[in-house]
This record gives sequence, structure tokens and C-alpha cells, in this order.
Amino acid sequence: MAGGQEKKPIANAKPKAKAGGGGKKKEVKKETGLGLSYKKDDNFGEWYSEVVVNGEMIEYYDISGCYIMRPWAISIWETMQKFFDAEIKKMKIQNCYFPLFVSPTVLQKEKDHIEGFAPEVAWVTKSGESDLEVPIAIRPTSETVMYPYFSKWIRGHRDLPLKLNQWCNVVRWEFSNPTPFIRSREFLWQEGHTAFATKSEADDEVLQILELYRRIYEEFLAVPVIKGKKSELEKFAGGLYTTTVEAFIPNTGRGIQGATSHCLGQNFSKMFEIIFENEKGEKAMAWQNSWAYTTRTIGVMVMVHGDDKGLMLPPKVASVQVIVIPVPYKDADTQGIFDACTATVEKLCEAGIRANSDFRDNYSPGWKYSHWEMKGVPLRIEIGPKDLANDQVRTAFVVLYVYLHFLRCSLFPDIAAHIAFSITGMIDELEIYAYRFNPQVRAVRRDNGAKIDLPRGSLVERVKELLEEVQESLFVAAKQRRDACIQIVKTWDEFVEALGQRKMILAPWCDEEEVEKDVKARTKGEMGAAKTLCSPLEQPEVPEGTLCFASGKPAKKWTYWGRSY
Amino acid sequence: MAGGQEKKPIANAKPKAKAGGGGKKKEVKKETGLGLSYKKDDNFGEWYSEVVVNGEMIEYYDISGCYIMRPWAISIWETMQKFFDAEIKKMKIQNCYFPLFVSPTVLQKEKDHIEGFAPEVAWVTKSGESDLEVPIAIRPTSETVMYPYFSKWIRGHRDLPLKLNQWCNVVRWEFSNPTPFIRSREFLWQEGHTAFATKSEADDEVLQILELYRRIYEEFLAVPVIKGKKSELEKFAGGLYTTTVEAFIPNTGRGIQGATSHCLGQNFSKMFEIIFENEKGEKAMAWQNSWAYTTRTIGVMVMVHGDDKGLMLPPKVASVQVIVIPVPYKDADTQGIFDACTATVEKLCEAGIRANSDFRDNYSPGWKYSHWEMKGVPLRIEIGPKDLANDQVRTAFVVLYVYLHFLRCSLFPDIAAHIAFSITGMIDELEIYAYRFNPQVRAVRRDNGAKIDLPRGSLVERVKELLEEVQESLFVAAKQRRDACIQIVKTWDEFVEALGQRKMILAPWCDEEEVEKDVKARTKGEMGAAKTLCSPLEQPEVPEGTLCFASGKPAKKWTYWGRSY
Repeated sequence: MAGGQEKKPIANAKPKAKAGGGGKKKEVKKETGLGLSYKKDDNFGEWYSEVVVNGEMIEYYDISGCYIMRPWAISIWETMQKFFDAEIKKMKIQNCYFPLFVSPTVLQKEKDHIEGFAPEVAWVTKSGESDLEVPIAIRPTSETVMYPYFSKWIRGHRDLPLKLNQWCNVVRWEFSNPTPFIRSREFLWQEGHTAFATKSEADDEVLQILELYRRIYEEFLAVPVIKGKKSELEKFAGGLYTTTVEAFIPNTGRGIQGATSHCLGQNFSKMFEIIFENEKGEKAMAWQNSWAYTTRTIGVMVMVHGDDKGLMLPPKVASVQVIVIPVPYKDADTQGIFDACTATVEKLCEAGIRANSDFRDNYSPGWKYSHWEMKGVPLRIEIGPKDLANDQVRTAFVVLYVYLHFLRCSLFPDIAAHIAFSITGMIDELEIYAYRFNPQVRAVRRDNGAKIDLPRGSLVERVKELLEEVQESLFVAAKQRRDACIQIVKTWDEFVEALGQRKMILAPWCDEEEVEKDVKARTKGEMGAAKTLCSPLEQPEVPEGTLCFASGKPAKKWTYWGRSY
Repeated sequence: MAGGQEKKPIANAKPKAKAGGGGKKKEVKKETGLGLSYKKDDNFGEWYSEVVVNGEMIEYYDISGCYIMRPWAISIWETMQKFFDAEIKKMKIQNCYFPLFVSPTVLQKEKDHIEGFAPEVAWVTKSGESDLEVPIAIRPTSETVMYPYFSKWIRGHRDLPLKLNQWCNVVRWEFSNPTPFIRSREFLWQEGHTAFATKSEADDEVLQILELYRRIYEEFLAVPVIKGKKSELEKFAGGLYTTTVEAFIPNTGRGIQGATSHCLGQNFSKMFEIIFENEKGEKAMAWQNSWAYTTRTIGVMVMVHGDDKGLMLPPKVASVQVIVIPVPYKDADTQGIFDACTATVEKLCEAGIRANSDFRDNYSPGWKYSHWEMKGVPLRIEIGPKDLANDQVRTAFVVLYVYLHFLRCSLFPDIAAHIAFSITGMIDELEIYAYRFNPQVRAVRRDNGAKIDLPRGSLVERVKELLEEVQESLFVAAKQRRDACIQIVKTWDEFVEALGQRKMILAPWCDEEEVEKDVKARTKGEMGAAKTLCSPLEQPEVPEGTLCFASGKPAKKWTYWGRSY
């Protein structure tokens, strides 16, 4: 996992500092071309596009809506995957792999479902030079791919629960505003598909999975989310109800669906005849769930934490948590500094910290600082001559050296020369020694720029603590910014005002589909209409007599409203 | 990883044996519908199709050439993936993800390459109801997807090596004889793509990767392979040379390409302008490799080890290594047996062995034996009443019980009754105790059917040893069968005879393309033509004056020939 993706790969082997002076002069690049052209607060869209590219997460591809996910992004995906995969295996969910392709008859079996996806389905109609007999769809999701086989495999109550998951790519050929990670024509996800004998088992699992999604966002990506239920209008096409973890992007004032866990009820099992004989010998229909999270998670994290210097990665998902940068001076002991960097990286890696060094000789330390800030590495350690020498010891030896030199030149030339030579060597040795046991090393936090002198004796412990602090700080700061955007409203006028201020609006609602459609229609505009984001699972009290902000009818629940991605 | 896929999921919770007698009679299914209809030696093709389905690895899908890979197969893929992914990360190869789609102009950039793949490319021409402006290809492999970006990312020698890998699906719309795992229209693989400054670095990596492929086959799948080089005719389209690990299926007498590691030379870097400035400031073209292994590995393993009872999984890749089956008798202490099974599974799992139990109450022990043999689990442990009680201790207690019972009924009724009651309880306790410390438990090996009584005191150690023995035995047996098929020939007549006997033929060859084409033409027939499989990297000596078996010209090397998949 250590060793982030590098445009210019960093040799991990012990580097040899070239002897100073003589030879071809090194071309040391300055800070050219490193900064971002756009500021997050001024032009969020351009800032985002630039930061995912300059941070080396994404490369734009020659097919619109498709993106290359570079190692710096994929390593984050793998970290989350490792966590989630282990958790679902504990729940006895098994991985499988169903085909990419769906035949049209099967795809169209569940009407509501296909209505939701039909306009985005990509169709294969040719292979080589020949036309296919029947066009074949590329999965936009796998309900219709899998459930004919659920029907085959499930016969009796002993065949339940059936709990499957797959890690794969899906394709939704959307035309609206493609955005890396957030809205792309192909993306990676996991999709879980489970079937139970009873509704209560299905209900339980929906929430268990939702909690895992919350943990991915809050514990790994340091992004606060709200657990909630989608409205009838916004729920998964063909399902019974949809739960969601909902994030919010303060800069655009838009909610974003983080991941969804659906209870499909018995709708699909009716269409696909997923019928089992229960313990009483009666025929019954299975209760089903499906749930997914996608590479969108990475985009949300970038949007929430990034700043005008670039990406800001939470330590838990950063493939490089600590970057160690040598800061050689003209006359300093460069090799000693490089050795010290290597020793530091080794020490950190041994302790399970993902550390790396940057020994490239064609970039200045300043350029490297900016580069690793752009890539969002949580902690930087700088090692230079100041950090290297223990000054008092050095001074004592220099005095001794001068004294011996004086002796050599005047009194006992031969013997003294020999001693002076030894002493010179000892000074060199001491420099490295002094480094290794030097009490301080300089660390810089990516999140707040704080410079911290770490005691070398407890370097590993302090770095671990600092990484935890950064992880925690990122979450707290993001939560504060998010919470500052939440506005409670009770009337239509307050609602319109809050929407104008790009808020995430919590309002009492009558829970009627027509009213949601009406709100959408009345708020239509350049920025996009407002809609429900979710009704939080943790519902504030709805006092007797509370009215819906939009319809004036009695309110049934509190619901988050806003514009969304 | 523990807990294999089950058509009928097995509860892992401690099961409660139902009190015997009364109630509805349990429907205990017999061996119906479990066996294979075809024998491996009689009808290999049908046997293979049946064994992958009945072993619950594959389900046939409603689109020809596409297959569902069920958890029993995917868990094997994941085990290999975990190994390979860790190994390539040690080599500083980084994972990434490039799009599924390729635009036609890019796809067709390298002529030889596209000629090799063109007839099999699937084309997306529509999304929803609309035609795409330009048809878009689905990747058959990603050279042309990736290399335009290699060109962009590689500028100077410090940008090299660039070493990427991705785990993904690819599509090759073949029309010839689709076979699960072996030849399917969509399959899973990893594809590595690397670029170096020098040929020697590229050459080194080709062989390092090939060695990992050998280890996957030999150490994990227990399948012997031959490392070799492909002929000019058989090499990767557009590459410089192709190395392979070549397996052999004795039943069909066909070689099968196990995995390939290609040196692409500078051909693609010329086409895609992957040019860097070397240390002397001169422009140079990168040297490239690409390498891949696919889900075909699983099919080869099934073909090599399976028998007329079903799959036979090498312990290293089996998601269930040990299946523990209760063998209750009518009057036996069923709950005690179930407890003993649970305790055994726990003990094995704690030691890192992937063990599971089968407590289903609607199947007989005999049915379960066949079921888990079909699924290829390497080791079965049977626990029944015989294994449960320590007979001597039990007898002593029964004598005591009868004696006390007699006392109760005659002499001191009240006190004795109390004691007798305690004794009865003690007998029950002892049964479980006796089980736990019983000196023997019965194990049965899947590979050779051997029944082994394992000392309970060293159960874990012995099971570990047995699993290692099974792993080793499978490899040795497979190697013996493979080696028995290798035939050295020196003349055309010997070649034709050996081909008729379905051998893997090692012959001296002049290494001329025209001669290989000629051999293909002369051996064309119902069974398919013979071609080169590979020239082994470990070359036997070619004595002065050795002639090519086919052309009579001086031989340059030893090469394996045969029919192939």
C-alpha cells in the first residue's frame, strides 16, 4: 500500500547524493505549473476538475463521461473495499460474479425498474463486422441479471437467506454534466443482493448495511453523513423503500446521495417468481434487498476536504500518510540527510505507517512541498542540516579540531596530523549519530499547516497520534461546515430564502408525492429544482399541529430538502 | 473466507437437535440427483459442463458464452488475487482502473494488434433509444486504452519505470465453442502494463511475472505447467515475444495456455509515441511489457483434478478445506454429536483452517458425503456416536447406575434416587467430555478416499499436515499424468503417431514460421490441427546435426507441439 502513485516514480533504494561541484549543473525545477488556477470558493466546478487531475487521481479520457482512475484514487478504493468486504463476509454475504450483459427481455421484466434506467442503457449491437441477432444491454445495475437465478436457486425455506455481493463495473450512459467520480458513464461499485424469508430480516439487514456505509464515510473518508429514508419519488425504481447516507457539499449547497441500501420488498420476487416453500409447507415470496456504494465516495471526499492547495486525504485512506522530504543546503552533508530520511521512512513503515520519501534531484524542496500538498498527503516531515547536527557536540569537536590543527602546524606536526584526520572523520560520524538521536524533527500537517517539532525518541508514537488527530480534525471541521449549512424552516418563505442561501433545509412535511412534485416545479430554475434529500432516521419530534412548510397540511415528518447532485 | 457457498445455506449458529419422536416426520432426501451423468474418461466435455454446474461453481446464463461465477468459484479467484496482488505490490506495481470503452480510432492504431482482436470486438452503438455518433468498442484488452496516456505521462527517464496493473473484466465475442472459465465472452483478469527505459529491465520483469504465474498454477492450483516461449505465429499480436505457462489436459490431449507474459518491445511505444529523454538528453522509446492471467485458471484446475465424483479442490484455494458432518443414529445423543461438530469446527477455525459443518436436517449423512465430494472439499470429518463415547468409561458408569438404581428400588429409596439422578447427569456430561478427549476422530480424504483416524489430542496439527499432504499429492498425481503424456519425437511419422495418441509432443524444430503453418495444414482434421505450444525455457541440448521433425532442416530448438484449447 505504501508508495503512492508518482508521475515521477521515487526510487526507494538508498539514493546516492552526487558529489557537489563539477559536472553538469542540476536542473532544479521551481514551483512552475504546480498551483491550481481556480479557487474552491470562486469556481468550484473548475477547481474540482483541476484538483482531481493535478492531484493525480484522475486523467480525462477521450470518451466523454469516462475517466481513468489512477493509482492515487484506486488505492483509496482498495482501502474501503478491504474494510467493507471483511464486514460483509462476517455477515455471511458471499461474493460472486454475474455477467456484464443482459438480454432485453429480462431487462424489461420489472416495469418501474426499467423505466428508471432505460434512457441510460448502453446497447451492444455488433461484434466484429456482424450485427447481433438481438441487441444486448450492458448492466446499469444487476437486479434483472441476478433474480432469474435467485428464482432457480431458491426452492424451500432452507435456501434462505441467500446473500450475494459482487464488485464490478456498471454503465449508465448519462448525458447530463459528467463529473469525475460523481457522475460518470462507467463506474465501479459493489452491489449486494439478498433474499430472506421474512420482512423483518430484510429490514434488519438494510440498516446493518447502511451503518457500514456511514462508517465508510465518517470513519474512513471523514465525511459527515445523515442516515435517512428517501421519499417515494426519490426511492429506487421498483423497490419498497430506500435508505441513504446523505452528504452535503457546502460550496455548491447541494446534497449528494452517498450510498443507498434498498428494501425491494416482494416486488421483484413477484416478477421473477422467487418463491419458496415455508416451514408450514406453504408457498411464499422472498423478501429482497439490494445495496451499493460506488467510486462516487472518493469524489465526495475530494469535494468536502480539498482546498486551494489541492487534495486533502484523510490518513485512514491515504496510500502515503507521511512524506519525508530531504532539505539539503549547499554545503551540508547531503548523503547524511538522505540516510536520515531513509532511516526515518524505514522506522515509520516498520510501525505500520505508510511513509515514503521524495529523493528526486530535479525538484527543489519547495516544489516537493507543494507537490505533496497537491496530492493531499496528511503529514510532511522535513529533514535538513538543522535537524541533522547536534550543535553543541559539533561545536565542541570543532574547537578540538582547531586546537589539534594548531598543534599539528606548530609543535608535533606528524602525530597531530594523524589525530586531526581522525577527528575530522569523527565529526562526520557524529553528524549522522547526532541526527539519529537528535531530539527534534520537523513535521507539517496538511490540514491546518501547523508545524510541529516531534521528539525523535518517540517519533513513531507521535506520528501515529498526529495522524489520528488529523483524521479526527478533518471530520470535525467538515461537520462544522456542514452543520453551518443546515437550516430549519417552517414556512414556504423561509424555505425559499434558505434555498437561495444554498442551505440543507430541514422542514416539516406532509409526505405527499404531489407536494414534492409541486415544490420541484415551483423552484425550477437555472440552479436546478429543490427536492427531498432524505427524512432522517433520527426524527426530531413533530409537535401536534405542525404544518407542512409547502402544503400547509398536517406535517408527518421532518425531511431534508435542497438541491442535489 | 470460511463458509463456502451453499445452495442450502448452513446455519453456523449452534443448532438445536429436535427431540426425536412425535411431530411431522422429517423428509430425509437420499442420494437422488447428486451424481454425475457423464464420466470424465467417457465424455469429457459433458463431464466438465456438468461438474462445474453441480459443483456450484457455474450457472449457465441466458446469453451464450456468458456464465455466472458463483461464490464457490469466486472465492478461489479471490485467493489467487490476494497472493498475486501482494506480490506485484512488492515489485512496486500499482493498481489503477482504465475505462471499459475504447474509441475506434485508438483501438485501430496498432495494426497487427487490432488484426488479432478485430473479429471479436463487441461494439456499443446505442444508448437508450439514441444511436451513438461513433460506435464505441468494449476492451478486449487494454494496450490501446492505456498507451496514449503512457505517452502523456512519460517525458523523461525519471518517469520510468511506469508499472501499472488493473483487475477488471474484458470482452471477446468469440463464436467457437464457448466453455465455462476456459473460453467465455466475458472474463475476469488482471492486466499488467509496464514501461521501462531499457530492454533488460523489461526482459527481467517478463520472467519475474512468469514465475508468479507458475506459482499460481503449481503452488495454489496444484497444476503442473511448463514455462516456455511462444512461436512467432502464436505470440501476442503486436508484441516482440510472448512467454507462457502451458498446462496440458490429458483427457483431451490438448495443451492450454495458462497465462502469458509479453515483452512488447518498442512497437507500441512507436505507435503511441511513448518517448522519453534519457540521461544523456537524447530521445528514446520506452520498452514495454504486458501480462495477464484470467479466470481460465479455475477451469484448468477443474479439468486437471476433477473426477467422476465431482470437483477436487486443492486445499490452498478451497474456501472450505474441512467439512464436518454429524452422523447421528436413531437412539444416539444427537445434540451431543452436534455440539461435538461445532466444537471441532471452532477449534479448526481458530487455528486458521477453513472449516464448516453441515447440520441440515433434511439430508442424510450419505447424501452430504456425496454433496461435499461433488464440491471437492479436500477433507471430511465424520462425527457419530461411535466417536462420541469413551466406551469403557461409559460401561463403568452404566454398571454403577444400575447398581444404584437397584439400591434405590430396594434398600434406601430416597437417598439412592437422588444419587441415581446425579449419576444420570454425570453420564451425559461424560459423553461430551469423552467426545472432547476421545482419542480418535474419523477423517476422509477427497483425493484418494483414504480413511484416517486422527488422534483428537493433535487434531489441528494432523489436519494441517493432511491438508498439506493433499495439496502435494494432487500436484504429484497431476504431474505424473501429465508427464505420461509427454512424448519425444524426431520424425514426422513418430509425430503423427504421437498426435493420434493425444500426446504433448516435444520435438526438435527449425523455428521457421512456414514450417509451423505447414504442420498445421498437414494435421488439419476433425480434432483440430496441431500447433506449437511453446519452446520450453529449460531447453534440452540440441546435438550437432539434429534435424527438424517436420522440415528436415537443421533444428534450432526443442518445442512442444500438440492440439490446444
